[in-house]
Amino acid sequence: MYPSSIQNLIDRFTKLPGVGPKTAERFVFYLLKAGRREAHALTEALETLLARAKSCAVCYDFSEQERCAICANAARDPRILCVVADSQDVQAIERSGAFHGHYHVLRGVLDPARDIAPEQLKIKELFARIAQAEPPITEVILALNPDLPGETTSMYLAKKLKEFPVSVTRIARGLPLGSDLDYADDITLTDALRGRQRL
Amino acid sequence: MYPSSIQNLIDRFTKLPGVGPKTAERFVFYLLKAGRREAHALTEALETLLARAKSCAVCYDFSEQERCAICANAARDPRILCVVADSQDVQAIERSGAFHGHYHVLRGVLDPARDIAPEQLKIKELFARIAQAEPPITEVILALNPDLPGETTSMYLAKKLKEFPVSVTRIARGLPLGSDLDYADDITLTDALRGRQRL
Repeated sequence: MYPSSIQNLIDRFTKLPGVGPKTAERFVFYLLKAGRREAHALTEALETLLARAKSCAVCYDFSEQERCAICANAARDPRILCVVADSQDVQAIERSGAFHGHYHVLRGVLDPARDIAPEQLKIKELFARIAQAEPPITEVILALNPDLPGETTSMYLAKKLKEFPVSVTRIARGLPLGSDLDYADDITLTDALRGRQRL
Repeated sequence: MYPSSIQNLIDRFTKLPGVGPKTAERFVFYLLKAGRREAHALTEALETLLARAKSCAVCYDFSEQERCAICANAARDPRILCVVADSQDVQAIERSGAFHGHYHVLRGVLDPARDIAPEQLKIKELFARIAQAEPPITEVILALNPDLPGETTSMYLAKKLKEFPVSVTRIARGLPLGSDLDYADDITLTDALRGRQRL
């Protein structure tokens, strides 16, 4: 057995997503070998983040300000709202450069298997935001992952959003660039055929 | 782009072995979601380790004491010395329960490709230890990885250890349990044949 301080840090690292005991061990010995400066830099970065990170009061993305950079940007169209599960999804869509509206971060998706109900997500906040928005929101784009929890959440939101005077869309499904038609699953192929577009 | 405190922690995490930007991102958002207590527990575990970790004065394994638990254990045979590259290797051999002697941790292996020369490893210390050991060390087992840097290091040590009145051995090579003869490489198969044992 390792000394307790080593074992304790290994245990802590294994709590990170996708990190098993072997990987955690490598992290610990890497940090021990890299020296105190590097290890302190890591703890400092984490403590700084904890001190600064808050939730944007509008979209619930993580932000260092009361309002995140996107919500505070007057050049963006506030009438189009893109609903995503996580901060990473905001970054992915921003990287594409294809969207110029605002976001709403649910902070997760509905997942009965993991006991995640609407109350644990920023869904109530989404409805309140749509109800109060000025100028009014005209379109809500659901941009959730095309998997079971994502679909469940999209269907739940689409149903509830019928009560609001907004059009609800969801991002298209089809074959991704560089993929092989031969290897596509039936549902993706069906969606790609149904969503075919005139050239 | 993420706020700077998030990006900074992502950058820090990517320094860990095998962690790319995507994985680092997942770590950061996991910690943000898990809450302050969990994140603080991680920084505390790391700071505690930095405060407590030292090198065993005898074998150079990481230890919380001046002498590690193995070196301080009077029940172990000090005449047999197992030379390993890293702390993790000590743990692996200890788990097997097949060794009851002492260890010497080199803290790496010779690797010209990465500019790692004998002076950067605990090799001088190994020779000094063998020269001064009381009772004298009779056997040195080289337990380094069977790859190029490991073999280079074993050959270097075997040559240098000729000057000392010790027998030098290395751990056997052959087919691991559960493997398939059909898929074994030529060198392993050659080693397995040469090292064949009477039943």
